[in-house]
Amino acid sequence: MQAVSFELIKKAARGGARRGRLHTPHGVVETPAFMPVGTAGAVKAMLPEQVAECGAEIVLSNTYHMYLRPGELIVRDAGGLHGFMNWKRAILTDSGGFQVFSLGALRKITEEGVAFRSHIDGSRHMMSPEKSIEIQNALGADIIMAFDECAPYPADRSYIENSLARTTRWLKRCKDFHKNTETQSLFGIMQGGVYADLRMRSANEITETDLPGYAIGGLSVGEPKSLMYEMLEVSVPLLPEQKPRYLMGVGSPDCLFEGVERGIDMFDCVLPTRVARNGRALTSQGNINIKNARFERDFSALDPNCDCYVCRNYSLAYLRHLFKSGEMLSSMLLTAHNLAFLQKLMRGMRLAIEEDRFAEYKNKYYAGLQA
Amino acid sequence: MQAVSFELIKKAARGGARRGRLHTPHGVVETPAFMPVGTAGAVKAMLPEQVAECGAEIVLSNTYHMYLRPGELIVRDAGGLHGFMNWKRAILTDSGGFQVFSLGALRKITEEGVAFRSHIDGSRHMMSPEKSIEIQNALGADIIMAFDECAPYPADRSYIENSLARTTRWLKRCKDFHKNTETQSLFGIMQGGVYADLRMRSANEITETDLPGYAIGGLSVGEPKSLMYEMLEVSVPLLPEQKPRYLMGVGSPDCLFEGVERGIDMFDCVLPTRVARNGRALTSQGNINIKNARFERDFSALDPNCDCYVCRNYSLAYLRHLFKSGEMLSSMLLTAHNLAFLQKLMRGMRLAIEEDRFAEYKNKYYAGLQA
Repeated sequence: MQAVSFELIKKAARGGARRGRLHTPHGVVETPAFMPVGTAGAVKAMLPEQVAECGAEIVLSNTYHMYLRPGELIVRDAGGLHGFMNWKRAILTDSGGFQVFSLGALRKITEEGVAFRSHIDGSRHMMSPEKSIEIQNALGADIIMAFDECAPYPADRSYIENSLARTTRWLKRCKDFHKNTETQSLFGIMQGGVYADLRMRSANEITETDLPGYAIGGLSVGEPKSLMYEMLEVSVPLLPEQKPRYLMGVGSPDCLFEGVERGIDMFDCVLPTRVARNGRALTSQGNINIKNARFERDFSALDPNCDCYVCRNYSLAYLRHLFKSGEMLSSMLLTAHNLAFLQKLMRGMRLAIEEDRFAEYKNKYYAGLQA
Repeated sequence: MQAVSFELIKKAARGGARRGRLHTPHGVVETPAFMPVGTAGAVKAMLPEQVAECGAEIVLSNTYHMYLRPGELIVRDAGGLHGFMNWKRAILTDSGGFQVFSLGALRKITEEGVAFRSHIDGSRHMMSPEKSIEIQNALGADIIMAFDECAPYPADRSYIENSLARTTRWLKRCKDFHKNTETQSLFGIMQGGVYADLRMRSANEITETDLPGYAIGGLSVGEPKSLMYEMLEVSVPLLPEQKPRYLMGVGSPDCLFEGVERGIDMFDCVLPTRVARNGRALTSQGNINIKNARFERDFSALDPNCDCYVCRNYSLAYLRHLFKSGEMLSSMLLTAHNLAFLQKLMRGMRLAIEEDRFAEYKNKYYAGLQA
């Protein structure tokens, strides 16, 4: 019995959009779903109850960060990530791969794994498929991710070819090392850069492992969006229909629509939380910068089409005042709105798929931006 | 008809503690009461609903800050401070006096008022009794404060004597200028430094104005606590029994006990919110520093005797992790706990006065600290 199972509820009549349901030890996740990111065991500037109130049924936390601080054994002894961070719904941990590969000069790749230095104190560490799974087992998330190499963009074909072959070898080591499959489900990660045939090769290789879910990694790393969409088009159809598909690190509204249309079920991204702290709000009319002088005396809501807690209770003028005054409440409220906005967008997509009007819903979203 | 009226419910059999009730246009405030500070129109790191959940029935906001940014007319047009900051209960605004006098070299005092430069952009401004009331009328708080001079400590007797005489003259100007007494009540402020006879003189002078409440200013500005208590002992009995008494800028647990015992009904202080952002928690066993290494693997609550949201849901280990990781949630949770702790302390005092066991309650608090 696998910890996490996927129920495919409906496929759109046209296009690849799907409506599904992820059953996890910590509740159901309706898909397509967007997962807010809680890097260090906390969705920044949010109480967990607020994250749930926004509609999120699953959050992501970062293995690299939790391993370095406070250490996975402390989290384990605190009752796992769920207990430690007071989040009662589902959790997914990434593998730490993305972070250690992002360290640049601070890391060195071998077949064994990646030797790296901590960004916090410079201490030396080794992350390998086995180590990543060991840490993730201690953290106790419902879904854990295979240790892969997220290759940079641009990269030579030969680099990507070698890298994805290693990612496949590492995936087998992850699967072999992961034992408690009844409480945590391991997802594999497809790589292949922006080379269509390598994406297809990777998709075929990873699905041979027969895991409960698959992710698409190494996209949204600087390549044009059209290339990302092309990669999805060639590779997603090679993934098994009855397994969930997770597009990693993607969360702008347009990419969510395009991803869902190409058969993606799960997304995560720091975008809604990060831009909030910089004073940017996602709205049905496009992004707005709360610092803008035109909001000085604007007593209307952030988004006239939003009924979230923030839009019901606060004005643009107040939010601008908070940001300019350096009040933490600015980040708290803009984050709450941005997360509620994306969750509402995903709810809308789910309903639209159910009612066979996904294209219409998507067109309506784009039309609103131009208003 | 005054906006705010005070109902004296009970006097302690021994000592000066009183149990009262402040009736305001935005609800009842049970006294003795502690008012959290929302300097710039927000209690730092807290949603207003959380502030209310902690038990606060009134918050303080700063006239100086709201005047400089965003400007009192914007607040007025947003529906006053209540509407602007989404706080449905009572609000008190200070006069701006404390802040402009704190500017040191940036301000100059005349009989007219205080000329000063903004701490934000260096722009020139003039704050006078009339200007302060005009701003506070625009902000729309339930209780507004007279424009006084909060003299420094230490200060010559002659300085204090001149200063308090001017504060009395300014109080009359404030009262004359304040018109909408049906929606906002003006409180006068006693001064007099640490000179017992000057405190008594000031008490007698300000009560001649027959206002709906009186504050004690110019204490907790660096003098020994014993001197503060002595000043309260000589001057509070000169204030009318049927009017509320507000000790400004005081909020440490011991000072709250000593103030209540000497007949104080209201307090405000940035202490619980400010120390929270520096990683300090108020507990029934004394203050703790969340950074302390001994909390690394301590999965118990901040305060074993507290049932607040934070103590119910988070461990010392998690709170320490958040602080060390620079997560905003650290400030959010420690602030929520500190405010809940002080509100619970005040609730305990109110009940103890009702049940004629204030001294016992106070002794129990001090005994807990030594445990």
